[in-house]
Amino acid sequence: MRILVTGGLGTVGRGLVGELRSRGHAVVSLDLAHQPDEVGFTLKPDVTDPMYARCDVGQFRQLERVFQVMGPFEYVYHCAAEFGRWNGEDFYETLWQSNAIGTKNLIRLQERLGFRLVHFSSSEVYGDWPGIMVEPVMDEHEIKQLNDYAMTKWVNEMQIRNSALQFGTESVVVRLFNTYGPGEHYSPYRSVNCRFLYCALHGHPWTVFRGHSRTSTYLADTVRTVANISDNFKPGETYNIGGRDLHSIEELSELILQVTGADPALVEHRESEILTTRDKVVDVSKSVRDLDHRNSYSLEEGLRLTADWMRKVYGKA
Amino acid sequence: MRILVTGGLGTVGRGLVGELRSRGHAVVSLDLAHQPDEVGFTLKPDVTDPMYARCDVGQFRQLERVFQVMGPFEYVYHCAAEFGRWNGEDFYETLWQSNAIGTKNLIRLQERLGFRLVHFSSSEVYGDWPGIMVEPVMDEHEIKQLNDYAMTKWVNEMQIRNSALQFGTESVVVRLFNTYGPGEHYSPYRSVNCRFLYCALHGHPWTVFRGHSRTSTYLADTVRTVANISDNFKPGETYNIGGRDLHSIEELSELILQVTGADPALVEHRESEILTTRDKVVDVSKSVRDLDHRNSYSLEEGLRLTADWMRKVYGKA
Repeated sequence: MRILVTGGLGTVGRGLVGELRSRGHAVVSLDLAHQPDEVGFTLKPDVTDPMYARCDVGQFRQLERVFQVMGPFEYVYHCAAEFGRWNGEDFYETLWQSNAIGTKNLIRLQERLGFRLVHFSSSEVYGDWPGIMVEPVMDEHEIKQLNDYAMTKWVNEMQIRNSALQFGTESVVVRLFNTYGPGEHYSPYRSVNCRFLYCALHGHPWTVFRGHSRTSTYLADTVRTVANISDNFKPGETYNIGGRDLHSIEELSELILQVTGADPALVEHRESEILTTRDKVVDVSKSVRDLDHRNSYSLEEGLRLTADWMRKVYGKA
Repeated sequence: MRILVTGGLGTVGRGLVGELRSRGHAVVSLDLAHQPDEVGFTLKPDVTDPMYARCDVGQFRQLERVFQVMGPFEYVYHCAAEFGRWNGEDFYETLWQSNAIGTKNLIRLQERLGFRLVHFSSSEVYGDWPGIMVEPVMDEHEIKQLNDYAMTKWVNEMQIRNSALQFGTESVVVRLFNTYGPGEHYSPYRSVNCRFLYCALHGHPWTVFRGHSRTSTYLADTVRTVANISDNFKPGETYNIGGRDLHSIEELSELILQVTGADPALVEHRESEILTTRDKVVDVSKSVRDLDHRNSYSLEEGLRLTADWMRKVYGKA
């Protein structure tokens, strides 16, 4: 099949492009940066058969052009988004432009072209929900979105549902829970796993907020499950893609000390963080059933592999 | 007091500027267009003491400059927004830029400068709620937002609440219900009252969807109530500002035929519209109690006055 992955240079997008290509699909990807294998729109590229396009999904003309020049596509995996809660607060113009306008741009093209959409949402849409995060929670309970990033992700789910109602578009939504692994390059806005590992390897101090718990999902597990969607595509469905074991942020930090051998004195403990979900207890039985979701790595294994990768990338081997 | 009204050239904004000035306040307004009484930022204006600034609230630099050059303000009435459901679907880039990013820009300035904010929300945030629309519905029930316009309005309310929680900003939200009256210039994206009146006066056919009911609020009543907020400012409160009498869209259309003497053959009836709330039954007891909200005009009176104004504006006298 011919498939488009938006945000193909991101942590999840890049992993997904690899997984889908390994299954024999013709995968085009797009992202904000120039790349050696990118298509030339008015110039002739040097690479034969380029499978990447530079494109800001928030700019309709650029997105439409990718479909005209590199389409048609049977599936579009929409990973392109501004990511993360504090990133969204600090770069909210970019957040709303890419996430709300960008996704609406893609939906408008879907209404015209009819491809199947797999949209990447986030566990953040569960907001302050105190119970087990099972997919229909959102249909039955009023959720307080705690930050603009969460709002954009919930807006996207509503935009997709309204388009399905009004125009019959076919989409599936996946809600990712704290995905981490090799391929996640550090910035202070990245996942807690990535940040603590990076700090541990570089001797930077890090802060652990007490009283929050999460599951972690190893990237290879996430992308395999998501790639399985085309084998059992059920329009209108939403899936949690999460890890098996609940761990506190304190436990995560302890494991990272073990795996990296970093100095425990680097860790500072603080009280619970404002506007942040305390516990995220996820039910993944639906993605296990429909998408053969499996968690193949323990947290310790996953952290070890990620630390190995990071040591190489950042020259700490 | 020194007050800023964003969207001061809009239907509600213009009415509010007049009301606040008649009460003796120093009112600065801003909007997208150039105006005779606008301030010059790098040039010297010809008018003495200009009280208008050209500004797109979606552009932080322009908004910040208004506060620097024309502030400080004790109150900001935030009327600037892309308005309306179909307008939001057809111009969604502008919608998200002005409403989500623009309001966040204003909140960031509020966190820095400490003014009190009165934010204009919409009855659209009640989505598909089938019961009486009383303010706390949103805190207790999951509401399906039916369109991007409604989403932006709900996003704004959450942005404001999160800022109050995190930074202690002081804001009041008003949810307007189908406000109409002299000052609402016609476009096909305006309120149903405005559209039908314009069509009736110009001999254009119009379509009445059966089975929807609304209240209508006469603009002069809305702006008086909203201007009262500074007399009894309760941070964190949300108020419905709506009309008294529920009427079907068929009844509204009949009244407009009476008031204008238009040909009944202009009216076409159709079945219920998709993704549109069927009935909006509003409870306004809270704004009556706290803000002395009054509905001083019957629907027929209000339509008559609006028709008189429209005849003058469009040369149909």
